[in-house]
Amino acid sequence: MTLLKSWLESANSAETHFPLNNLPYGVFSVEDGDLRCGVAIGDRILDATGLEVVGILRADPEADVLDAPYWNDFMELGPKAWVAYRAQLQALLAEGAEEATQEALIAYTVPMAQAALHLPFRVSEYTDFYAGRHHATNVGTMFRGAENALPPNWLHIPIGYNGRASSVVVSGTDVRRPWGQVKAPDAAAPRFAPSARFDIELELGAIVGVASEGPISVAEADANIFGYVLLNDWSARDIQAWEYQPLGPFQAKATATTISPWIVTAAALAPFRCDTPKREVELLDHLKDCGPMLYDIDLAVTLAPDGKPATTIARTNYNEMYYSAAQQLAHHTTSGCPMRVGDLLGSGTISGPARENRGSLLELSWGGKEPIALDTGGSRSFIEDGDTLTLQGAARGEGYQVGFGECSGRLLPALKEPFARG
Amino acid sequence: MTLLKSWLESANSAETHFPLNNLPYGVFSVEDGDLRCGVAIGDRILDATGLEVVGILRADPEADVLDAPYWNDFMELGPKAWVAYRAQLQALLAEGAEEATQEALIAYTVPMAQAALHLPFRVSEYTDFYAGRHHATNVGTMFRGAENALPPNWLHIPIGYNGRASSVVVSGTDVRRPWGQVKAPDAAAPRFAPSARFDIELELGAIVGVASEGPISVAEADANIFGYVLLNDWSARDIQAWEYQPLGPFQAKATATTISPWIVTAAALAPFRCDTPKREVELLDHLKDCGPMLYDIDLAVTLAPDGKPATTIARTNYNEMYYSAAQQLAHHTTSGCPMRVGDLLGSGTISGPARENRGSLLELSWGGKEPIALDTGGSRSFIEDGDTLTLQGAARGEGYQVGFGECSGRLLPALKEPFARG
Repeated sequence: MTLLKSWLESANSAETHFPLNNLPYGVFSVEDGDLRCGVAIGDRILDATGLEVVGILRADPEADVLDAPYWNDFMELGPKAWVAYRAQLQALLAEGAEEATQEALIAYTVPMAQAALHLPFRVSEYTDFYAGRHHATNVGTMFRGAENALPPNWLHIPIGYNGRASSVVVSGTDVRRPWGQVKAPDAAAPRFAPSARFDIELELGAIVGVASEGPISVAEADANIFGYVLLNDWSARDIQAWEYQPLGPFQAKATATTISPWIVTAAALAPFRCDTPKREVELLDHLKDCGPMLYDIDLAVTLAPDGKPATTIARTNYNEMYYSAAQQLAHHTTSGCPMRVGDLLGSGTISGPARENRGSLLELSWGGKEPIALDTGGSRSFIEDGDTLTLQGAARGEGYQVGFGECSGRLLPALKEPFARG
Repeated sequence: MTLLKSWLESANSAETHFPLNNLPYGVFSVEDGDLRCGVAIGDRILDATGLEVVGILRADPEADVLDAPYWNDFMELGPKAWVAYRAQLQALLAEGAEEATQEALIAYTVPMAQAALHLPFRVSEYTDFYAGRHHATNVGTMFRGAENALPPNWLHIPIGYNGRASSVVVSGTDVRRPWGQVKAPDAAAPRFAPSARFDIELELGAIVGVASEGPISVAEADANIFGYVLLNDWSARDIQAWEYQPLGPFQAKATATTISPWIVTAAALAPFRCDTPKREVELLDHLKDCGPMLYDIDLAVTLAPDGKPATTIARTNYNEMYYSAAQQLAHHTTSGCPMRVGDLLGSGTISGPARENRGSLLELSWGGKEPIALDTGGSRSFIEDGDTLTLQGAARGEGYQVGFGECSGRLLPALKEPFARG
């Protein structure tokens, strides 16, 4: 777990999210140009599409896979190609690479500050889990009391539901407060209104890089995961409360799901692997861990009111999860469900044991009963119009970090007339 | 509602599902050839891809949209193009068309009996509703008692959940009995086993033909629906019972969803429009009907044990639905959920008031307590290995019908070792 040094000096800083150890994959554009595949290194982006075209760095000698505004075709090549490409990248960018190599490559970089970032992959389908024990316990306690906090199935399977891939957007995209049908507990009838309890969920998203048809084991699932992004599963708690019985969340989760722009590969995270927590009840064989399956990734959430500085409202770690992404993916396939390259699996909200570790405002404000204070004055139970919510995440090595960048979104006010057409 | 006569004699039969009034869209291949777009007419398939290439019949003068193994690009052209293409098709195939036209066209047909049929469109995302009142009442009565059969939200919104698009297959595809985690009510712990309560759900699937970004009205939603297919939402009831609290069905519904191979267009079904049933409580404005939004479509389910003739186990009608597909689609967009061309919306199980109208074995056998008798001897509570389940559907005119063909699947036994790799 030491820094791999690059000839690109900005990649050697302890502050950068993107040292040579990381090399995450994204999609960028410059000045309204076309969308290109890129690799983050220090404060620059390497133009992977351009390098493929000129033949300096190719993932497949036969076919162009980066001539597309997404990394899906690259993922389709499979794990051996992923390893080989990453090894080439690291060799080209490592300290000591030949002068000519450095000159050739630097011509294919752009300053990150000048680039717009886009969705790094085409989301095939999106599944969201509920696999953090502190979160499930907090929510269950609020709704059903401490005695019945966890549903009977919770310690046996990673509970999940299918979300809406069309609603996935990249960090920086504004999110519009949704309308929906809501009903106050004491109201006789529901009404159609803007959500008054709009929330975030701090999650990690796992990206499936290998398609499968039948059931797969946890070990196979682990090998099929290409990488990870930060994921904010925006949630309208009032819409959810009215709609979710008996078939689960639907419109409450369909407004938007924001992901960070860089796919941090499983390879880059490998040095930070750690165990899932001790099991309260033994898992059935098909869901058992087969090694350290979580990652030690520090996570934080900030909230910035319109025009004001941000307050850090939560700090937690991905190692708080009860089920790993590999266990979730294995469970996802038990019934024979086909999985595709580009499937996105949300971890579920990652809360820790203390109040300041909670990954949603629902938990932080305990259902609105205990609003949290902001550094800039005022308080929050749920998100207010103009607030910018940002997730941050990084695995920390000695003198370096493997970071995710940011996963950020600003809440716009609800439409005044939801069905008016301009 | 009278037959439109064609020069192709087989299209004028009262028995065919595919008279000139219908003209449904599918994808076919002959003798392992490439997949082509086709239109069903009588006992033949018109090669729409071929007719586009030679310029006899084009949907878009500028671009080839049928040079693909799906109708999505055609749908993308929008409702005006749909109308124009259908009008051209009807003119070319109508009785009285010039001899030369008939000769030119007949060369671009193949006998349906010689063709293999494939998924007619690329399924973008799949949503399944629970919007048939008899079904929801039956299931609710079984699980919660007659007093609490319908959840409080049921009469106010069409309850739905996101399904798994990757699991959608075309009629004729074998379905493998799934494994899953199940727990008997009196068992101390769950176990991993093949589903013992595997079931069908008789549904109609609506296909979204126009993308949308924000909330849309019921009228807009109605205009955005391109067409319909029969849909069998295979369901593992024992897996569902264990997993569905609190976030809804997941692996119980992910093994397969079978659809019929022909998209029957909303245009073809227009003469059969009928009203949704009387409302017990008034709907909020954004979900109100704006005209007759259902269709009078006779539906049936047959079950054929391995090697034996089929028994009709249910007969019902799409006019039994409480919510129309337009209301479902409008509700789907309330939170701002983006909809895409190729999204598939399952109606929910279409049961009628009497026992013989029930659209699932769960209801027909009342949870397994009242097995149904088969004409060939024996009985069924749930599906047995080797059984072929077939949905049928047709709207009946005077002396003709607008039919869907069949939606059929045979159940293969569960894998002996689900994680073994060949």
